[in-house]
Amino acid sequence: MSEAKKMCIVIFGGTVDKLYPAAIVASGAVMNDMEVDIFLTFWGLMAFKKGAPGQLTSVSKDYEEMGPMMMQVMKEKNVPSWYDTLKQAKDMGNIRIHACAMTADLFEMELDDFEPVVDDIIGVGEFVGMAAEADTTLYMG
Amino acid sequence: MSEAKKMCIVIFGGTVDKLYPAAIVASGAVMNDMEVDIFLTFWGLMAFKKGAPGQLTSVSKDYEEMGPMMMQVMKEKNVPSWYDTLKQAKDMGNIRIHACAMTADLFEMELDDFEPVVDDIIGVGEFVGMAAEADTTLYMG
Amino acid sequence: MSEAKKMCIVIFGGTVDKLYPAAIVASGAVMNDMEVDIFLTFWGLMAFKKGAPGQLTSVSKDYEEMGPMMMQVMKEKNVPSWYDTLKQAKDMGNIRIHACAMTADLFEMELDDFEPVVDDIIGVGEFVGMAAEADTTLYMG
Repeated sequence: MSEAKKMCIVIFGGTVDKLYPAAIVASGAVMNDMEVDIFLTFWGLMAFKKGAPGQLTSVSKDYEEMGPMMMQVMKEKNVPSWYDTLKQAKDMGNIRIHACAMTADLFEMELDDFEPVVDDIIGVGEFVGMAAEADTTLYMG
Repeated sequence: MSEAKKMCIVIFGGTVDKLYPAAIVASGAVMNDMEVDIFLTFWGLMAFKKGAPGQLTSVSKDYEEMGPMMMQVMKEKNVPSWYDTLKQAKDMGNIRIHACAMTADLFEMELDDFEPVVDDIIGVGEFVGMAAEADTTLYMG
Repeated sequence: MSEAKKMCIVIFGGTVDKLYPAAIVASGAVMNDMEVDIFLTFWGLMAFKKGAPGQLTSVSKDYEEMGPMMMQVMKEKNVPSWYDTLKQAKDMGNIRIHACAMTADLFEMELDDFEPVVDDIIGVGEFVGMAAEADTTLYMG
């Protein structure tokens, strides 16, 4: 398995429309048998606070007039939430989810304060080292 | 030609200021004789709906106070639109533009509903496979 | 030293919360002995105009209700500014900071109009060439 391609994803954004692509790309990577490391930082980390995923409904202000239509269509078509999409991909494949130590320190949060999909808290230096070895790294702003 | 460097670009954002860099980076890649695969998703795909590029004038809300000045300067200097910049780069080089199948399905759009620069509709798994082989992948949020 | 890993970062965004990750990731790359090339474009370049870093206080509108809390916590904990974080990383490591020629031309700015951390003004074609050779490229939207 040491030959698996590796993908790194930084999730910085914390709105529903920005979290979906992260979950979907991670699923796509699992479909391609890739290993995925996700680094949650700033607003992206806030979205993984215990209880936060179920309450998150905001869409980027840049597209707010299209937001309700998007949410409505997703509900009608029973599209799973970004969080369930990511959790399912993690259950099926090789995804590790890391919280940014600096953001966690800043807001005095510990591993226990996050949803259980979060595996650990690591520093940016460690994550950059992972990214340097990855085949693809995406920064999702 | 199998030795050409490859670039993948995900266009997620759909405001004028976010679409310009995508078009300009794609042009820069063509100047470097690279092959470019662009994946349009969410608001980025909406920007390629038939008729949409010519009507799009919105700038990110984060910079809205500078937006009119930017648009004004671009008009005065006859800077080509983001869409014309991209189309011209595509005419000159090796750029393929793919619509995200999931977004297209969600909004019940088919290839015919998009501007003719869009080549096909593909799934995220296929795109992630392309990105895993690319020399550079940029996610333009 | 020709074996050092290379990272490229495009800074497009120009709000405080978007500039921090760029500075922090660049620091993380220096910790990993990587060489870093940063390309400043659009709103990211505006943030490096002479005098701009010290005056910049805006947080992305998507998270504006959390912005004041974030700024307050950072002040209380004496977190250095994004600019000082970046400058310090540049003093310690191998970081080059390039202004996007097209944005500079558009707004009729020359090298002298930017903060002294900016090393030069280069075209997007040159930057894409750097990115094609880098181990990791991040587009910070």
